[in-house]
Amino acid sequence: MTPERRRAAGPRIPRTATRRETVPTVPPASTPDRRTEVDVTALLERGRTLATPVLRAAVDRLAPPMDTVAAYHFGWIDADGRPAHGDGGKAVRPALAVLSAEVAGAAPETGVPGAVAVELVHNFSLLHDDLMDGDEQRRHRDTVWKVHGPAQAILVGDALFALAGEVLLELGTVEAGRATRRLTTATRALIDGQAQDISYEHRDRVSVEECLEMEGNKTGALLACASSIGAVLGGADDATADALERYGYHLGLAFQAVDDLLGIWGDPEATGKQTWSDLRQRKKSLPVVAALAAGGPASERLAEMLAADAKSSDFESFSEEEFAARAALIEEAGGRAWTSEEARRQHAVAVGALDSVDMPEQVRAAFTALADFVVVRKR
Amino acid sequence: MTPERRRAAGPRIPRTATRRETVPTVPPASTPDRRTEVDVTALLERGRTLATPVLRAAVDRLAPPMDTVAAYHFGWIDADGRPAHGDGGKAVRPALAVLSAEVAGAAPETGVPGAVAVELVHNFSLLHDDLMDGDEQRRHRDTVWKVHGPAQAILVGDALFALAGEVLLELGTVEAGRATRRLTTATRALIDGQAQDISYEHRDRVSVEECLEMEGNKTGALLACASSIGAVLGGADDATADALERYGYHLGLAFQAVDDLLGIWGDPEATGKQTWSDLRQRKKSLPVVAALAAGGPASERLAEMLAADAKSSDFESFSEEEFAARAALIEEAGGRAWTSEEARRQHAVAVGALDSVDMPEQVRAAFTALADFVVVRKR
Repeated sequence: MTPERRRAAGPRIPRTATRRETVPTVPPASTPDRRTEVDVTALLERGRTLATPVLRAAVDRLAPPMDTVAAYHFGWIDADGRPAHGDGGKAVRPALAVLSAEVAGAAPETGVPGAVAVELVHNFSLLHDDLMDGDEQRRHRDTVWKVHGPAQAILVGDALFALAGEVLLELGTVEAGRATRRLTTATRALIDGQAQDISYEHRDRVSVEECLEMEGNKTGALLACASSIGAVLGGADDATADALERYGYHLGLAFQAVDDLLGIWGDPEATGKQTWSDLRQRKKSLPVVAALAAGGPASERLAEMLAADAKSSDFESFSEEEFAARAALIEEAGGRAWTSEEARRQHAVAVGALDSVDMPEQVRAAFTALADFVVVRKR
Repeated sequence: MTPERRRAAGPRIPRTATRRETVPTVPPASTPDRRTEVDVTALLERGRTLATPVLRAAVDRLAPPMDTVAAYHFGWIDADGRPAHGDGGKAVRPALAVLSAEVAGAAPETGVPGAVAVELVHNFSLLHDDLMDGDEQRRHRDTVWKVHGPAQAILVGDALFALAGEVLLELGTVEAGRATRRLTTATRALIDGQAQDISYEHRDRVSVEECLEMEGNKTGALLACASSIGAVLGGADDATADALERYGYHLGLAFQAVDDLLGIWGDPEATGKQTWSDLRQRKKSLPVVAALAAGGPASERLAEMLAADAKSSDFESFSEEEFAARAALIEEAGGRAWTSEEARRQHAVAVGALDSVDMPEQVRAAFTALADFVVVRKR
């Protein structure tokens, strides 16, 4: 992974919010004609349809009770073992993985083991992160450690990680070895990001750069791998794979910026989270760190308020109005507008990374449409 | 891994103990002339000397604080970060890995990335198992989760596992892909073994077969990988690698049988464990399950006694004599003699597996000497 280093963030943060948006979504920079050509729903459905049976077959290989615990985590069964139809998520990663195979002139199916391996690694990290973070809910359901205990969360996470390597390496090809190496690098980045996330919790101040680095590790690295793994399996050269990784990495940062906006200003009905969700969790997300870095009266007042909150014993019982006041200060200090602009910038870098890669025009249009989809979303 | 299935264990268990041993070690079956040719200490030292610097360089790649936590786990620093010279263990796995490269006519150095990867996976499993099992001590020191907290134990375990793949796959060769695939299979077996170990804790009865399967997964699989990975990296064919895996798998079972004997009858001064250590932990180890499977008066009395113990509220305060009585019943029922014989049998299968492999005579002698060393030990 060789993401372009972004310029120093500090000076680029506007001192005051220059614009207001009623919804925290970001209009895409891409040209409308490209977007209308592509049916994003069909792209996502194709990835899901190709990857899910292979993913389920892989998980079925796990010895009991790990197969059941994993099936619960994926939402295929409920806590009592009855079949369920859980929210499988947007399935952007599988869509990217099978699409990327087409860059190499291969069939979408060539990307499937890559799509499955990436999903396995993603879910390995969710299982372990939820336990480390003490999160009790994921996708509107109790997390695995809550239902099946910490040992099963550790064990099944480990098993999914191992399974990811197995699914790729049993292909027995040189390309599979290269794909696994890239996936391993991405996994190390995921782990680094979680380590940073944990260490930042204990700190008063986190810089914008540190926040972006952490988000690049936690979100960018695996999306980078998803965007290139099909191409690698299809025999693409390293330069092509690197360019696709840059696309995915910056798309991940754009995604995360939008996620951070939704974490504060998102509509609870659309996101399924509480109002001011990230503020309630004292998350040092992009709008917060950007607002704190901006300087000026609103920024200083916010810093004082958050410092007081950190010592407050009745933070848990804060009213809606108290959180709304903090959100307003973040906005006044420019944190919201900056994050919105950052999403746009990362989206542009992502789409721009495709320029160096030779690929069929409809494949390029599909990558662009998926990038637009990722930044224009409400949940 | 295609371990030879052992014959049904039940009927082979002697009804009464036919012999008594004052030390729970097992005289090797190998011919004395081969053993005198080989300096086992030098073999172990060679593996340690070749692998340790590469292992330390790999661990140094981890981002802070994971590098420090890992260095503590490996015994390179103490809990305050001061340099330490911990007990690095017997280093049988690195010795086997570099030796196996010579089977393929390669230099011992060719096996080093394999030795390092196997050590990383072994230590990944120790970090996670200690947390899952709630074990507070390892190698006479507090375990990582006790010193650095559960999150670091999970995170650093994950990082070591990922690093193992990285160390191999960055070689960029077809052989590295094959080696990683075998290591991944072994890791899945490790995880299966830990899952079995956890589930057996909650059961009244475990069969001899189930116990052997669990021990094969927990100990055999990784020793199998260690015994073949250097050969794979050196370009050996699958038949050769499979035969070396059989050697390592059965050597692991022999090792574990000896370990189970030491867990009950070992000299605390040599093992560094409490007297009757495995009995205090109610471990369903081989001597226990074999004694319970044997039938007869002693076996029945033992079964009644252990069933009462499971319900007893003052088990923690049992006297030396009470544990000694249980150990005597296990011995009377034949559990000790059977396990001793099982160690010998597995040792013979291990050494026999080498017969199908063409290799220099001094390499064969070294494998045989290491097998002897593993079963003739006091800790």
